[in-house]
Amino acid sequence: MMGKLFLIGLGPGDGDMQTPQAAHALTSADDIVGYKSYIERLTDRLPHQSLHLSGNGSELARARHALALASSGRTVAVVSGGDAGVFAMAAAVFEAIESGEEGWRSLDVEVIPGISAVLAVAARLGAPLGNDFCVLSLSDNLKPWELVLQRVTAAARAGFVLALYNPASRARPWQLPSALARLREILSPDTPVAFATAVTRAQERIAVVDLAHADEQEADMSTLVLVGTKTTRRIERPGGTPWLYTRRSASEALS
Amino acid sequence: MMGKLFLIGLGPGDGDMQTPQAAHALTSADDIVGYKSYIERLTDRLPHQSLHLSGNGSELARARHALALASSGRTVAVVSGGDAGVFAMAAAVFEAIESGEEGWRSLDVEVIPGISAVLAVAARLGAPLGNDFCVLSLSDNLKPWELVLQRVTAAARAGFVLALYNPASRARPWQLPSALARLREILSPDTPVAFATAVTRAQERIAVVDLAHADEQEADMSTLVLVGTKTTRRIERPGGTPWLYTRRSASEALS
Repeated sequence: MMGKLFLIGLGPGDGDMQTPQAAHALTSADDIVGYKSYIERLTDRLPHQSLHLSGNGSELARARHALALASSGRTVAVVSGGDAGVFAMAAAVFEAIESGEEGWRSLDVEVIPGISAVLAVAARLGAPLGNDFCVLSLSDNLKPWELVLQRVTAAARAGFVLALYNPASRARPWQLPSALARLREILSPDTPVAFATAVTRAQERIAVVDLAHADEQEADMSTLVLVGTKTTRRIERPGGTPWLYTRRSASEALS
Repeated sequence: MMGKLFLIGLGPGDGDMQTPQAAHALTSADDIVGYKSYIERLTDRLPHQSLHLSGNGSELARARHALALASSGRTVAVVSGGDAGVFAMAAAVFEAIESGEEGWRSLDVEVIPGISAVLAVAARLGAPLGNDFCVLSLSDNLKPWELVLQRVTAAARAGFVLALYNPASRARPWQLPSALARLREILSPDTPVAFATAVTRAQERIAVVDLAHADEQEADMSTLVLVGTKTTRRIERPGGTPWLYTRRSASEALS
């Protein structure tokens, strides 16, 4: 008997941003597989499930373990923070399917989307994604840094808003400064930049600055960096972080 | 007394994909403002709210109407399909605030994110957003077509997956063919392309083809077109639409 595999996006952390679809899938699962910090958020609500915690990294091993469990007839939930398909577990699972046992292609796999970090951050800031935008990871673990810089350059030159995932970690300290230096060659010094850390969680921290003053020290592993365009506007307001929004009309952006 | 303004993303249509946060905000509202087809989805659950329906277009007028209502002390919900910040109402509301009455800057505005079309479509297909991606609108109502093509070109050359919103309408019949022609100059003919229409709704329709055979007739106003890269893979499976996913490693994409 074939089981079922859910690939679930839990949203950014706030349970109120987790969809009912994700909640139902979690409840129906026999096994929950995922990075420990995501599973730890869930445990008090899931007393009947077997929990398979793992460290960060080893995504392919985690994916294969989940596929083997589902193949044995169990209902398995692989959980990711944010959306399952955005720099998270879904791609690793399909990669494991493509290179794995023939029978895995017959599995019932259902991907359940979640509120991604970029959407949660944008909502906190106002409407910075009001026009075309790019979502890219600054991690060079799985792609050469030269390619990351090519993409940052192309996106900024073409006037896309940039959402930068994985901007920094202890093992990757120089990548964000390098990307910011490249952006300063392309964009105006007053381009708005936001550092949004642990959004919707207790440790939430948001800084809105301009590109000239963007400081990589603001970023850690839980930060998303959002870089505006020449049509991204800052609205000052009494007693609050300024709102950012990108104009819907981009005529003035034509270069 | 100042009121409250919620800018709510309802998700792609399936109520199970609407967050509890969005549901609570709708329930707490005195007034709901939005495009009629979104509000019509809601009416049976919201008996006590005043509904302010509008046609598509006139986003700024709708935004000002909502701001005026909130300024008079009411709790107002402006609703959008998908996410409020992705080619939806949030940017129009902040544009109206910036150019409008000084008092509007003191309003309590809360943006509530939703599952955007691009996330819902990606989930249906597998994991096509497994690497860097761009989200752009093919509508030239608010930007010149030359700029749209510049962005399509830059994103495809740099190896981003492309999610194309607003690919076609009766008033914009030639834009998608023009964009596809440009993409055929840049990408391999076997690049996977998906046309995903009305995803999660009763009329859902999904076609996965290759770029050489991509046919603009598949697209209408409810379609999102997703264009892969040279690392986007198609996994055939018994008795189902093939899965698409983009490899997490992009080393082979370096040009």
